[in-house]
Amino acid sequence: MKQIISIPSFLKTSSKEGAAPGTLVHVGEQKMKTASITGWSYDNHTCEEQVDLNPALTKDIIKKNTINWINIDGVHDVKAIEQIGAIFGLHSLLLEDILNTGQRPKIEEYEDCLFIVLKMLHVNENRQLSLEQVSLILKDGVVLSFQEQPEDVFDVVRDRIRKGKGKIRSRGADYLVYRLIDTVIDHYFSTLEMIGDQIEHVEQELIERPSDSVIQSIYSLRQQMLFLRKAVNPLREIAGDLQKEESGLMQEGTAIYLRDLHDHAMQVIDAVDTYRDILGNMLDNYLSLMSHRMNSVMKTLTIVGAIFIPLTFVAGVYGMNFEHMPELAWKWGYFVVWGIMIMMTVGMVVWFKKKGWL
Amino acid sequence: MKQIISIPSFLKTSSKEGAAPGTLVHVGEQKMKTASITGWSYDNHTCEEQVDLNPALTKDIIKKNTINWINIDGVHDVKAIEQIGAIFGLHSLLLEDILNTGQRPKIEEYEDCLFIVLKMLHVNENRQLSLEQVSLILKDGVVLSFQEQPEDVFDVVRDRIRKGKGKIRSRGADYLVYRLIDTVIDHYFSTLEMIGDQIEHVEQELIERPSDSVIQSIYSLRQQMLFLRKAVNPLREIAGDLQKEESGLMQEGTAIYLRDLHDHAMQVIDAVDTYRDILGNMLDNYLSLMSHRMNSVMKTLTIVGAIFIPLTFVAGVYGMNFEHMPELAWKWGYFVVWGIMIMMTVGMVVWFKKKGWL
Amino acid sequence: MKQIISIPSFLKTSSKEGAAPGTLVHVGEQKMKTASITGWSYDNHTCEEQVDLNPALTKDIIKKNTINWINIDGVHDVKAIEQIGAIFGLHSLLLEDILNTGQRPKIEEYEDCLFIVLKMLHVNENRQLSLEQVSLILKDGVVLSFQEQPEDVFDVVRDRIRKGKGKIRSRGADYLVYRLIDTVIDHYFSTLEMIGDQIEHVEQELIERPSDSVIQSIYSLRQQMLFLRKAVNPLREIAGDLQKEESGLMQEGTAIYLRDLHDHAMQVIDAVDTYRDILGNMLDNYLSLMSHRMNSVMKTLTIVGAIFIPLTFVAGVYGMNFEHMPELAWKWGYFVVWGIMIMMTVGMVVWFKKKGWL
Amino acid sequence: MKQIISIPSFLKTSSKEGAAPGTLVHVGEQKMKTASITGWSYDNHTCEEQVDLNPALTKDIIKKNTINWINIDGVHDVKAIEQIGAIFGLHSLLLEDILNTGQRPKIEEYEDCLFIVLKMLHVNENRQLSLEQVSLILKDGVVLSFQEQPEDVFDVVRDRIRKGKGKIRSRGADYLVYRLIDTVIDHYFSTLEMIGDQIEHVEQELIERPSDSVIQSIYSLRQQMLFLRKAVNPLREIAGDLQKEESGLMQEGTAIYLRDLHDHAMQVIDAVDTYRDILGNMLDNYLSLMSHRMNSVMKTLTIVGAIFIPLTFVAGVYGMNFEHMPELAWKWGYFVVWGIMIMMTVGMVVWFKKKGWL
Amino acid sequence: MKQIISIPSFLKTSSKEGAAPGTLVHVGEQKMKTASITGWSYDNHTCEEQVDLNPALTKDIIKKNTINWINIDGVHDVKAIEQIGAIFGLHSLLLEDILNTGQRPKIEEYEDCLFIVLKMLHVNENRQLSLEQVSLILKDGVVLSFQEQPEDVFDVVRDRIRKGKGKIRSRGADYLVYRLIDTVIDHYFSTLEMIGDQIEHVEQELIERPSDSVIQSIYSLRQQMLFLRKAVNPLREIAGDLQKEESGLMQEGTAIYLRDLHDHAMQVIDAVDTYRDILGNMLDNYLSLMSHRMNSVMKTLTIVGAIFIPLTFVAGVYGMNFEHMPELAWKWGYFVVWGIMIMMTVGMVVWFKKKGWL
Repeated sequence: MKQIISIPSFLKTSSKEGAAPGTLVHVGEQKMKTASITGWSYDNHTCEEQVDLNPALTKDIIKKNTINWINIDGVHDVKAIEQIGAIFGLHSLLLEDILNTGQRPKIEEYEDCLFIVLKMLHVNENRQLSLEQVSLILKDGVVLSFQEQPEDVFDVVRDRIRKGKGKIRSRGADYLVYRLIDTVIDHYFSTLEMIGDQIEHVEQELIERPSDSVIQSIYSLRQQMLFLRKAVNPLREIAGDLQKEESGLMQEGTAIYLRDLHDHAMQVIDAVDTYRDILGNMLDNYLSLMSHRMNSVMKTLTIVGAIFIPLTFVAGVYGMNFEHMPELAWKWGYFVVWGIMIMMTVGMVVWFKKKGWL
Repeated sequence: MKQIISIPSFLKTSSKEGAAPGTLVHVGEQKMKTASITGWSYDNHTCEEQVDLNPALTKDIIKKNTINWINIDGVHDVKAIEQIGAIFGLHSLLLEDILNTGQRPKIEEYEDCLFIVLKMLHVNENRQLSLEQVSLILKDGVVLSFQEQPEDVFDVVRDRIRKGKGKIRSRGADYLVYRLIDTVIDHYFSTLEMIGDQIEHVEQELIERPSDSVIQSIYSLRQQMLFLRKAVNPLREIAGDLQKEESGLMQEGTAIYLRDLHDHAMQVIDAVDTYRDILGNMLDNYLSLMSHRMNSVMKTLTIVGAIFIPLTFVAGVYGMNFEHMPELAWKWGYFVVWGIMIMMTVGMVVWFKKKGWL
Repeated sequence: MKQIISIPSFLKTSSKEGAAPGTLVHVGEQKMKTASITGWSYDNHTCEEQVDLNPALTKDIIKKNTINWINIDGVHDVKAIEQIGAIFGLHSLLLEDILNTGQRPKIEEYEDCLFIVLKMLHVNENRQLSLEQVSLILKDGVVLSFQEQPEDVFDVVRDRIRKGKGKIRSRGADYLVYRLIDTVIDHYFSTLEMIGDQIEHVEQELIERPSDSVIQSIYSLRQQMLFLRKAVNPLREIAGDLQKEESGLMQEGTAIYLRDLHDHAMQVIDAVDTYRDILGNMLDNYLSLMSHRMNSVMKTLTIVGAIFIPLTFVAGVYGMNFEHMPELAWKWGYFVVWGIMIMMTVGMVVWFKKKGWL
Repeated sequence: MKQIISIPSFLKTSSKEGAAPGTLVHVGEQKMKTASITGWSYDNHTCEEQVDLNPALTKDIIKKNTINWINIDGVHDVKAIEQIGAIFGLHSLLLEDILNTGQRPKIEEYEDCLFIVLKMLHVNENRQLSLEQVSLILKDGVVLSFQEQPEDVFDVVRDRIRKGKGKIRSRGADYLVYRLIDTVIDHYFSTLEMIGDQIEHVEQELIERPSDSVIQSIYSLRQQMLFLRKAVNPLREIAGDLQKEESGLMQEGTAIYLRDLHDHAMQVIDAVDTYRDILGNMLDNYLSLMSHRMNSVMKTLTIVGAIFIPLTFVAGVYGMNFEHMPELAWKWGYFVVWGIMIMMTVGMVVWFKKKGWL
Repeated sequence: MKQIISIPSFLKTSSKEGAAPGTLVHVGEQKMKTASITGWSYDNHTCEEQVDLNPALTKDIIKKNTINWINIDGVHDVKAIEQIGAIFGLHSLLLEDILNTGQRPKIEEYEDCLFIVLKMLHVNENRQLSLEQVSLILKDGVVLSFQEQPEDVFDVVRDRIRKGKGKIRSRGADYLVYRLIDTVIDHYFSTLEMIGDQIEHVEQELIERPSDSVIQSIYSLRQQMLFLRKAVNPLREIAGDLQKEESGLMQEGTAIYLRDLHDHAMQVIDAVDTYRDILGNMLDNYLSLMSHRMNSVMKTLTIVGAIFIPLTFVAGVYGMNFEHMPELAWKWGYFVVWGIMIMMTVGMVVWFKKKGWL
């Protein structure tokens, strides 16, 4: 039984117990050395991109009348986050949530900004799920995105901006936020498909070579589904809340896309639920099958025992060495005993058949 | 254990991950070569029908003051769908949903049109359920219906239009939409009845010839019920939303029919739930019965062992070849041993009876 | 395992798939030849009763300023239902629901009439539950009731009207509707009591003579509870909706009685739930008891085997016929072997006791 | 398996099936001969108490400007209840509910009075739960309370009124109603504590002397919890409804006490839920423990068999009496066989160890 | 099976059954002798702290225009609580709830004060969870906190006040209340992390040395999770209600912190749910693994028996001592028997293989 527990990351906040709310401490695994910041400023006509920005100078990239996107990889770099927070006037509780990678997915409206926490889903090389926190902030036409480490998931969006494909260049910052969320959710689909393949593989294995390790894999997958539901269920609420958002940060034309987002979130939740049900049904099926087979094995073999043990007893009786055993001297004794034993066997087989045990 | 998993189709959207929302890519199995389009234009007095329309010319069939119905079979034909979308001014997200056959059943109100996605239920020749996506659009008195492949389910409606039977010719486009949805839901009933027959057949088999493969069939049916619920549960919401629809697309006189639709949807959901419960109860029943029978087999046979093993031991003792075994020389030794063995047997049987094991 | 499935009747609508909504086709089992119609017209002072009415003449019995009740037994008689529908101006969807005995219990408000579908509960001579559909219509002071076959359940109400007992003669048509529903629900109580007696009987049997057939009965009763819940759960909603009814069809003074109805419905639902819980608990109890007993049987008997099999081996060793077996010639060899065997037995018993297996 | 079913009392209404609503028939067990009525009339300064009132004269004790409490023990006395109903102008449906001891706990507002049904919880000498119905009516400053038989539960309140302790004498009739309900709910706590002790006792027994009868007790307790939930769950709603009561029957100053009542009801519900969970966990624990132990017994003992049965076979071979068995004549034959048998034993033990079966 | 039940403390209120509501009686375990009271009075500039206050003089510490915090350790000291209640004009029901340590966590708005009951979570040295009640009152800029015994959990807040760190000195009394609640909830995280470690430890043990006592630990942990949920679930409601609080006791600027509180409460609830799920999955996994292994042990060993028992029978036959057994005299008899036995063995092994039992 390999280890299947991993304390869910949203419990890891405890290490800062005692600190005042708003104190900026990174909670989670440190995945890279310093934060890496890239800035974008684009509109329909122009598109500027700057890499490896100095946190203190992030404001410089912001221009009026363009859409500005600043992406920060490496939320453990408390100092950088603090500087950015100061530059954009972000609330300390909000910064705390960015640093603490143990958040539940959520959406929060602050007075003048929208704060969204999502969980990016990865399957590592050992086929273990891992979740990475992605935080998005929309404020005054600027989109800030925070990731734990550089991931190539947003590359699709970057590409699209660079090439000016689709509506992304002509629409506002709220559309960019939508696109980033949609990218995260779309990424769930490919991960879920990988899990689906794993489930199919495990089932194949179960049919062909059932073993302890296969059952382990099923329970491990089921455990992963338990965790995944916690990460995925809030998506419905987030997409719903975005639609109902009334602060004006989301423009009216984006509403139709947000409904689409809601739809995708529902599909992801449905898929996770379905996988859980499939795994449960598979286990039930396997266990009842095993028990059915085991029963027929045990039954047949026990019957063999039940027939031969009495016969052996009879043979044992005439193997005794008493001096006075009249039957031993009978001429047909041996054959009579054989007759008795054959009759016993036939009698028992008939009785078992009648009882339906054979 | 034959393979019972099939990744639910609403996960198959992943293959277009990275594409912008609204990008038109067909997701699903390609079931025919090119789209086949038929157009209808009818009212109380006239009825025109055109087959194999060119997608670019679909607008030509539309007339004012008549009810227009355009049916497109083969949603993989992206180009045709695109042309039709352009002609009728459909939103790109809507077209995307039509092409992506992995949608959940849903209803969406767009500014000037109503968009409904349903799942048609089929049982193929191998008695496996399969779901086909049907999309309906109601816009400006025109009804557009999209199917994955030509199915004869809508023939009932076509017949009725041709012959001018019922209210269909005298009522508006919204009534046509209602009739199409109702036809899809009615089709569930016949499929459910087929599943019901299968369940009855499996139960019969379970009574007469219980075997691994029967248990497999039960689990496989239960799995199908799990999937079916996902397709069927949103029906309640769709029918409910249609009733509450306020855009004026659904006329007042149709409301009473929509309530009937809601009723039918509830009946389908009830039936699926009931089948699931029946299958669960059947499995529980079978397993507890098996275990009850197994127990009585094992008990009886183990008792046989428990009686004869000690007797065999006694016989074994006097089968030993020691030179000095006084009992062997006794005149009545053999009969004394028989007496002892009979007493042992009687004693054990009495004890077992007293314990209630026999 | 006797057959326990019966496809729930609300699936039987499929036989008219393809027919237009509102098409009048009887769906269900035909239980009598032609409809039998009785009419009542009464008020505080007068009471007129006519039996075997001609469907075409039912209107004649209706009088102004009296309460009119027309009871139709035999809903398979499509023609009679059609005539009555035409006379009273009933909507075709409503008539369709009356004819289709696979409805869920429900209440529907039409513009000028109230339509209620209930399920009457019967236990037939084989102790199988069966449900019969009862439809009630309240329109313009006329109450129409439709039953599948003549049942004596409403006799109580008839009696009361004839004898002018209680408030029934002095109150309006809405009170009559209430009384009819209440009679149906009250009938549940007596049926539930019969089921309760059956459950007690089965439990007694389980205690005294547990057998396959008793377990079958429990599962069969549990199955019946599953079906019954589907018929009974909508009662709460019906009673609740009747209370909230605002069309003026239900008079204010009747409200207090409707609350009572709601109460009774809740009691029926509670009872069905409780029976289901009792049956579940009984099964769990029985199964865990069986497994507990089985375990102690198996354990004791296996221990017998574990003690005597090694002893038999020892005896077997000295039953070998080798020419050179020094022990056989020893004077005390036989007794030494006995000593060894007794020690082995004692040692194992002590070890088993220490392990807590004896 | 002793009998654990008792048909829940709220099914016992069936015996009056067919009677008109409002017909006064006592439903339930008759627990005493005639009703015993006591009357109280008190305010801040005076306190009058009369016992064994004649039902026809109960009105005489009522005074203006005082709080009046009339307690009736013995609801089977239909005539007395009828007289009191007439004197105080109570609705016949209300009286019917008082007489029918199979009610669910509920609260009902009539035009000018408040009607509350509660279930008093008792544990009889056989440690079986029983429920007694208590009905309370608040009308025009008069409180009527109905019990099935004289119980000393309300003595606490009586004492308090007599001695003028607490706020009871200075507050209105609504406070008295609150106090009576609170007394009933408080009584649940002591009964629940008794059940808690029983659960602890049963657990102790399970640890020390597990037996069929202990498992029976656990299932019986779980059954009782199932029933208790039905009686206890409506308390939350009753307390909530009392708080929202707007008829003016409950005075504003009492609101704070009603919130307290709600709190107590929640505690009772929580406790019942917790007991159910504890019992379920206890059973799961016990069963998995039993199965774990059973497995280790069976395994060890089966291994003994698996080692000695092949050895016995070997011994059996050389116990055969063929005239031509070369091995028998070998000088070292006997010892070689011993060697083979020891090697077989060692080999099997090693193999079992490697497999982790020992 | 060690004892795992402990009657949940919220049942312990029964000992005051019969007392009037508002009677001040301590219910719970007495954990210290007399109450120990400390007072704080601070604002941005000043900070006064007094220890071991006399209950009668607590008012003296209160100053206008400062934030005042009075902490009382030892709620069994009824007299002290009564005095404080009188000084601050607290409602008797409120005082009753403080004294009764069996409350559910809750929030109550009184006319001019806010009353909050929480449960502090401890893990004692025996790794058993225990809950301690913490009551908070906010009234007129004074915060009163009541604990069962002095705990160092609030030391973090005290420290912060003393050192003037963070916003605590510059914000109002409502912020102090928030901070105290947040401290309690933050403390859950560290306790949950300890439980998480225990779960990991137990799982490790289960992998390496599965035994009865490990299974016991899992069930005991699961039991603890059952209790914990009862204490933790109301937190969501409390945090939610605090946000919606409209009496003006909570200032607007604190709202953002209350949302954070709600978030933390949700994280705690999620964690408890997840642990319960993990434990359930772990048990299922372990049990199915055990049963899988048990099955393979039993199967292999039973097969050994099934092969050798018939062989032993054959050997037994030729060990019989009949005078007339022709086979014994055959020259090749012995070898023929060997041949037969080898063929039987091979035949059975082949048959078992074909059946898939080997």
